[in-house]
Amino acid sequence: MDSTEHVLNRLTAVLEQRKEADPNSSYVASLYRDGIDRIRKKIGEEATEVVIAVGNTDRDAIVGEMADLWFHCLVALVHRGIDPALVLAELDRRFGRSGIEEKAVRR
Amino acid sequence: MDSTEHVLNRLTAVLEQRKEADPNSSYVASLYRDGIDRIRKKIGEEATEVVIAVGNTDRDAIVGEMADLWFHCLVALVHRGIDPALVLAELDRRFGRSGIEEKAVRR
Amino acid sequence: MDSTEHVLNRLTAVLEQRKEADPNSSYVASLYRDGIDRIRKKIGEEATEVVIAVGNTDRDAIVGEMADLWFHCLVALVHRGIDPALVLAELDRRFGRSGIEEKAVRR
Amino acid sequence: MDSTEHVLNRLTAVLEQRKEADPNSSYVASLYRDGIDRIRKKIGEEATEVVIAVGNTDRDAIVGEMADLWFHCLVALVHRGIDPALVLAELDRRFGRSGIEEKAVRR
Repeated sequence: MDSTEHVLNRLTAVLEQRKEADPNSSYVASLYRDGIDRIRKKIGEEATEVVIAVGNTDRDAIVGEMADLWFHCLVALVHRGIDPALVLAELDRRFGRSGIEEKAVRR
Repeated sequence: MDSTEHVLNRLTAVLEQRKEADPNSSYVASLYRDGIDRIRKKIGEEATEVVIAVGNTDRDAIVGEMADLWFHCLVALVHRGIDPALVLAELDRRFGRSGIEEKAVRR
Repeated sequence: MDSTEHVLNRLTAVLEQRKEADPNSSYVASLYRDGIDRIRKKIGEEATEVVIAVGNTDRDAIVGEMADLWFHCLVALVHRGIDPALVLAELDRRFGRSGIEEKAVRR
Repeated sequence: MDSTEHVLNRLTAVLEQRKEADPNSSYVASLYRDGIDRIRKKIGEEATEVVIAVGNTDRDAIVGEMADLWFHCLVALVHRGIDPALVLAELDRRFGRSGIEEKAVRR
């Protein structure tokens, strides 16, 4: 699924461009302008909606809320100047490549 | 960044395989066994840690907590029988491809 | 501090009365009408704001966000037909009366 | 319900005393020692458990999770040197006394 594999890169590029956009016409630019606490609140809100949606079996709702959460996570990363690819690389390092580093994520 | 682009697919495959693993030796298998409420609690916990980390500027902490959150989101999706690629496709549909559907994620 | 000690009882009575109020003129009545998932989302939102506020030292902000969180907790309890005094009684049972049952709240 | 009305005052006094307790034998003292970020994480965890419990109708579970959340809120307040009675006073100011200041809590 080629388009999927490149989604994160495309999204990151768009989120970078939004740093130059007008907060009155761009939701992302308005988040950047409002600052990190507004973005943190959105992450908390969307995480709660994911917790609620995942408790039910409506697949579209789960996918939709998860997309909202990941989106605001990406906004936070770009706002902090962090390439989201680093998060995937960390996931890969801990888990994906070997499948044996599972404990690294255990709490 | 080839390895990064394929990370989600690899992680999804590993998480699928864990459905057959021994909960005593696999953290993911223990989450599946404990059930969806345990996974939801982990998402809430990790989201809180992201909210805290994003409030500071320690990049490694932000990347690490974000990886933990995304990891448990992936576990929830696979547990619900939902391909995580669907979430990326939804993000792409709303935002990445055109860059003009931004309002779709606004709350 | 007489007024403080009776606040919970007064609040509970008001929240009960709101079950008969017009959702168009009462915020609480609109929460009841929208249902438990709307109230759950508010609890998640306000908890995130508490987590953020408590990370700083602005006392008014901490008190204000804590009040918002407790308020929506009370709304949830009354919506579920549970007297908030039961929560205080549970806190007292576990902790306050003896001071030695502290482990009961440990996770 | 006399004992209930005084619960918060008693709990606050106990939580104050715990500032002198040994973190190895007191859970609350261990939270103080670990610091505000540990307490914030507990608030996030317990809030998630409230969100989950409130989605079901098990009254004991709702009361128990709510008690856990309020307990860690009290710990945060005392750790920050804030009398929990101030939160009740704020609730009373906004809502309880008049019942007409409801909008003050609206978001």
